[in-house]
Amino acid sequence: GRDKTQLIAYADRFGGSLAELSQLLRDDLDGVFDGVHILPFFTPFDGADAGFDPADHTQVDERLGSWRDVKELSRTHHVMADMIVNHVSHTNPAFRDVVENGEDSEYADMFLTFSAVFPDGASEEELATIYRPRPGMPFTHYRWGDKTRLVWTTFTPQQIDINVATGAGRQYLENVLDALASGGVTQVRLDAVGYAVKTPGTSSFMTPQTYEFIDSLAERARERGMSVLVEIHSHYENQVEVAKRVDQVYDFALPPLLLHAIHSDDIAPLTKWLELRPLNAVTVLDTHDGIGIVDIGGDGAKPGLVTDEQLSALVESIHDASDGASRKATGWAASNVDIYQVNCTFVDACGSSKAYALARAVQVFTPGVAQVYYAGLLGAHCDLELLERTGVGRDINRPYFTAEQVRARLRDELVADQVELLRLRRTHPAFDGSCTITADPEAASLAIEWRQGEDVCTLTANFAEKSYAISHS
Amino acid sequence: GRDKTQLIAYADRFGGSLAELSQLLRDDLDGVFDGVHILPFFTPFDGADAGFDPADHTQVDERLGSWRDVKELSRTHHVMADMIVNHVSHTNPAFRDVVENGEDSEYADMFLTFSAVFPDGASEEELATIYRPRPGMPFTHYRWGDKTRLVWTTFTPQQIDINVATGAGRQYLENVLDALASGGVTQVRLDAVGYAVKTPGTSSFMTPQTYEFIDSLAERARERGMSVLVEIHSHYENQVEVAKRVDQVYDFALPPLLLHAIHSDDIAPLTKWLELRPLNAVTVLDTHDGIGIVDIGGDGAKPGLVTDEQLSALVESIHDASDGASRKATGWAASNVDIYQVNCTFVDACGSSKAYALARAVQVFTPGVAQVYYAGLLGAHCDLELLERTGVGRDINRPYFTAEQVRARLRDELVADQVELLRLRRTHPAFDGSCTITADPEAASLAIEWRQGEDVCTLTANFAEKSYAISHS
Repeated sequence: GRDKTQLIAYADRFGGSLAELSQLLRDDLDGVFDGVHILPFFTPFDGADAGFDPADHTQVDERLGSWRDVKELSRTHHVMADMIVNHVSHTNPAFRDVVENGEDSEYADMFLTFSAVFPDGASEEELATIYRPRPGMPFTHYRWGDKTRLVWTTFTPQQIDINVATGAGRQYLENVLDALASGGVTQVRLDAVGYAVKTPGTSSFMTPQTYEFIDSLAERARERGMSVLVEIHSHYENQVEVAKRVDQVYDFALPPLLLHAIHSDDIAPLTKWLELRPLNAVTVLDTHDGIGIVDIGGDGAKPGLVTDEQLSALVESIHDASDGASRKATGWAASNVDIYQVNCTFVDACGSSKAYALARAVQVFTPGVAQVYYAGLLGAHCDLELLERTGVGRDINRPYFTAEQVRARLRDELVADQVELLRLRRTHPAFDGSCTITADPEAASLAIEWRQGEDVCTLTANFAEKSYAISHS
Repeated sequence: GRDKTQLIAYADRFGGSLAELSQLLRDDLDGVFDGVHILPFFTPFDGADAGFDPADHTQVDERLGSWRDVKELSRTHHVMADMIVNHVSHTNPAFRDVVENGEDSEYADMFLTFSAVFPDGASEEELATIYRPRPGMPFTHYRWGDKTRLVWTTFTPQQIDINVATGAGRQYLENVLDALASGGVTQVRLDAVGYAVKTPGTSSFMTPQTYEFIDSLAERARERGMSVLVEIHSHYENQVEVAKRVDQVYDFALPPLLLHAIHSDDIAPLTKWLELRPLNAVTVLDTHDGIGIVDIGGDGAKPGLVTDEQLSALVESIHDASDGASRKATGWAASNVDIYQVNCTFVDACGSSKAYALARAVQVFTPGVAQVYYAGLLGAHCDLELLERTGVGRDINRPYFTAEQVRARLRDELVADQVELLRLRRTHPAFDGSCTITADPEAASLAIEWRQGEDVCTLTANFAEKSYAISHS
């Protein structure tokens, strides 16, 4: 069946290698996680975007291990891996060949140019309509044989978009799927897939053409025995729509709604979301990215789960709760890929260990796969030293832990409580039954009850007092 | 007649205000400078680009003084001021009105949009052909009433390009010229004018249409009793062409050629340039910008004054001579507006006070107006503290001096020697005559002789020994 609990971690930052990550999961965390999302371990794992800009997506970075290590881990844990659909690094050998040889390169069709999308040119309106994750235009000048061309670069000038509409682009994606499947990966996370298909005259973000592309990609993954998880940050109604069409989606609305409830004692937006959220979701608090704020905001005329004022107040509350640490790492302050996220550890965003423990308990009881990021699991605070060293905003929540350091942290009370909670979620039979959620807005409290026959497991969560209690049969 | 010597300085960094700058010029530097280029003193003088992004180009920033101070200074010194032709700050009130009211704003035509240049859209080739001073596309998304539009931003997203083809754009430029003329300014430096005119299908940089625009702008300046100095960084042959059509140009090739001669003992490129350079030039060593390297390099198929290898070696020599200081401030290392310039004080770029004094002597003897930047005049070294504080590469060569600190520096030997040299250039009658330059490539030495009747003044400069001698009647 589906996983109940998953870890999400970088091999180099949680243990140090694939082998050490595996050992921690099997020995120290035995029985805690069904699966693990290993963040990009391809070649290189430490490029300009922490592995999300592979030069060779089909090879494991040998500094971390080999496909054999991934395959070995997959004997005891379901392995999820990223499929970076939208782009490759500018150091990708096929792209270097195009830079050198231009149209004469056999890979010329693999990469997306301006005129591949707009063969007759583009108007201001067509260009202004394109949805982008960051300011500026999504094009970069690159040498292309003896010409200079405008190459589509949705994220950074160093991340070169794949032309998924050509045979060469599709073949590239097939090769990546083959590599993942033969390495023992059973779940594929489609990274930034919302941007992959460009259709002139549209926003080129989550258009009907994008849905078709995701369908076909999911089909090709399924042929290889892998399911698909789609990563999209968007208005909550879009998330509900997307969930109907794919295997699994992230519930990115839950974490900011929990923070809103913690900082304002107002559970109304959270309660509303718990009623209408899709159930085929992976729940999270923290991830390797920032805390997605846009996910609960409005979109033009469509209101969000909270008002603009509540959203602004939430961002300020996080900055206050973290003693200003998150301010240093967010928005224009650091070289951020995405200005719509707040960079902060979740413990610090909550303002106290007690409030954090409450948020984690509600997440773990919420229907879906409970995914836990290694930094939150280990109760990490904002890493200002790492932020200072690299200047990368997200590094504030991407700390490094050796295997020894992980083992030391596991003895911490906050960490041990989470481990116990995850074991309960994995093993108690009530969680195979049905879930009932009741809210008391006046008291800012929630009850989440799981029941299967005689077996019952109940969480009562009080946001006013930042406390929770669990009772089970 | 034309000025023989000019100072170039910021009022806030050389003295602290317009009044203190004036006092230094009249008292401590009496008889040294005919004119002064006061770097932008408009409102505000300390925006995102050190005054080159005015919100109100017609007003003196009141923290520096008033138009009365400028007018008063103009009684004893010719005053040159910048006319920022290409853009205004995004905080400009007229632009804020357009952001608020869109097409309903009376200023909507004053600013340049994508579709003002490309009403039927643009092809990849048309967009890739546009010449830019920095990477990326020269467009930024801005709200425009109830729409989002692509606004032309040649330099940074915060510098909004003026549409010089419309009545509103032309009226803006007229207003600026009026303000400068009534403030006592007699020479107008056209900043970044090479980018001001956009013509579809061309590079939009120094096209025939740009020349026409400069002609008409110079005509309007002349009507108000002001002459025009054109700032263009470009291939040396372009500089020769531009010089034929305007009052005055900068000689930006001289400084890197002097550095090449100092670091390689090779005077051949310098000698070649001295033979073909235009005589209606303003000579410089250092300026408020970086050291322009592109000015002596090749342009596509057209070879430069030095080879690519010599150019690379020169950049490395500067980095070595400055003990790596310039490397920290140049290219991708700091938030630079222009990656084709090396940021370094000229003293440090030369590697020694002796070599610097040689370079300054050759500049002052070279035909043209000898313009001296305050940092070089005061023998300043790279300001790593200021660079660290602001993160702006050019600040390494934009130090702050109070009037007291300026006076203290004037007692320094290197500074006093330059002052004496400038007095000689201003007062010796030989410099009103003709100039003969002879080179001895074997010995890496040059002789520059000025003669008028009986009056003779000769510089012999030896680049192998980094020494010079002056003899005069």
